[in-house]
Amino acid sequence: MRTILIGLGTIGKSFCQLLLNRKQDLLSDYGLDPTIVAAADSKGVAINEKGIKINDIINIKEAGKSISELSIGNKDKTAIELIEEVDAELLVEATPTNIQNGEPSNSLLDIAIKTKKNIITANKGPLAIAFSSLIEKANYNNVILKYSAAVGGGTPILEFGRKCLEADRILEINAILNGTTNYILTEMDNRGLSFNDALNEAKKLGYAESDPTLDVDGFDAAAKLVIMGNLLLNKDLVLNDLSVKGIRDITQKDISKAKGNGNTIKLIASINKSAKVSPIEISREDPMCVKGALNSVKFTTEFAGEEIIIGKGAGGMETASAIIRDLVEIKQNMRV
Amino acid sequence: MRTILIGLGTIGKSFCQLLLNRKQDLLSDYGLDPTIVAAADSKGVAINEKGIKINDIINIKEAGKSISELSIGNKDKTAIELIEEVDAELLVEATPTNIQNGEPSNSLLDIAIKTKKNIITANKGPLAIAFSSLIEKANYNNVILKYSAAVGGGTPILEFGRKCLEADRILEINAILNGTTNYILTEMDNRGLSFNDALNEAKKLGYAESDPTLDVDGFDAAAKLVIMGNLLLNKDLVLNDLSVKGIRDITQKDISKAKGNGNTIKLIASINKSAKVSPIEISREDPMCVKGALNSVKFTTEFAGEEIIIGKGAGGMETASAIIRDLVEIKQNMRV
Repeated sequence: MRTILIGLGTIGKSFCQLLLNRKQDLLSDYGLDPTIVAAADSKGVAINEKGIKINDIINIKEAGKSISELSIGNKDKTAIELIEEVDAELLVEATPTNIQNGEPSNSLLDIAIKTKKNIITANKGPLAIAFSSLIEKANYNNVILKYSAAVGGGTPILEFGRKCLEADRILEINAILNGTTNYILTEMDNRGLSFNDALNEAKKLGYAESDPTLDVDGFDAAAKLVIMGNLLLNKDLVLNDLSVKGIRDITQKDISKAKGNGNTIKLIASINKSAKVSPIEISREDPMCVKGALNSVKFTTEFAGEEIIIGKGAGGMETASAIIRDLVEIKQNMRV
Repeated sequence: MRTILIGLGTIGKSFCQLLLNRKQDLLSDYGLDPTIVAAADSKGVAINEKGIKINDIINIKEAGKSISELSIGNKDKTAIELIEEVDAELLVEATPTNIQNGEPSNSLLDIAIKTKKNIITANKGPLAIAFSSLIEKANYNNVILKYSAAVGGGTPILEFGRKCLEADRILEINAILNGTTNYILTEMDNRGLSFNDALNEAKKLGYAESDPTLDVDGFDAAAKLVIMGNLLLNKDLVLNDLSVKGIRDITQKDISKAKGNGNTIKLIASINKSAKVSPIEISREDPMCVKGALNSVKFTTEFAGEEIIIGKGAGGMETASAIIRDLVEIKQNMRV
């Protein structure tokens, strides 16, 4: 499958590593032989119509250099021009999330749809801002748009709701969708740390970005909830529809009060009639009350009761494995 | 869909109730209009080629009478003769589990396969005893055989492994698959009860059968593990291949020792190279360490890490909802 790869951060690099590790089984089990015919990182672009060697991509990124050094074509193109001009069946897009206007992802997806390339994105941004119109454009142009990696890292949260609960009715979802804030709240509860001390520790361990706004103020969880609500509950939500409150104001006093009730405080993304993200007290006995950087999602269904799925919500290799899942599903759909 | 329903205990009755409650949405959402053309309970059979009214089935069972009172055809038939002679596309089979020889389920499935009827069974017995040969016979005869309800009640454990982890590789499964023993172990841990006192309480609450052997000695969990290993890990297992140890010998001394290590004792069904069921110490911090009658399954995958799914593993309506899931999937497959 001729593939354009945009974004060579942790997820993009891990995707390359998985393509390399799984070359044999992707071919034998799924008939998949992805060829990277063009790629872009933040510093430049590379084109090779016969396929850029994946080993070379990994090595050049390990060396801290730009992908453009591998180009045998014109290097003076933008990522958008790559997508527009290079002959390919698939765009894999893993640029950084932007929840203000979805860029650069939004424009990349747009041009891929116009030029009839199937899409796998790991990017919450455009989906949280314009889910319905994106899906509509993709459907109208007969383009398959997959986005497993945008929610739950490697944990197949969207697939679970879509494929395992299809014959049931999801009435409500309550979820811990952000590992960084869950780590911070866990350390505040376990060790009595202040919010700031726990945040600094999360930064040291690489769980939190240097600008932790997206996580700490609840918008990362909210963006994921928008995607879940639209896909699994047929809502027509955008990020601005949600009430969003983060965990900056949580103090040891709040934690102690919760403890006194047999509870702890978690940043819960919930959707039934309305959708919101807010720190709330939940019982320590609730199986969705996970610790550390884990994610958990409780689906309340009409007939099968409550189902909970728990897993790591982040990680390069895990998230890349979700892209591979999408790749296999696209291949299976293309065959039909 | 012309359907023969064998078995009108809790699950069979709940299935009827769901068909009634969901008549509208099964038709509008999935094009499903199941008609019960024949049915059997432990006391007799009923035939009505034009469809037995589902309300009548529910009422007659509520009144403690046999289904045979609803028959407008010959009542002197066996369940096997029903399946052989009545024109139908589907057998729904919910007879009691028998792990010695799989009967009566085994013979019922056999005749359904021979007469080319698709099958939904909630019965672990024949699958635990002869999984591979059953699947082979069904495939050879172009019969769809579904058995979601045999593992996890309403919790879509098999679907999760099959549909959500398909593009990954499951390396290992560790699971709490029996709600009765998990309830007993939870009460032994929480309240210091002896095994016998906790068992008696489980009986009073309806969690344990009057003969609790299947649960307490680990064979219910083992039968489910056989099905999971065969379906999800491509093993060729039968129940006799497993090492199975139940919880009868667990004492307060064992529980206290586990507590001292920050652990508790759970009946764990595990499969990697080998398959076994045994009470073992696991950390209280492990998210799969659920309380009460819940089930939990931890899938260790090669690429996406550990994924845990938690839900009720029993219950009439929940288990019946798994039969409806299978029904929807059969309908979708028949359409292709």
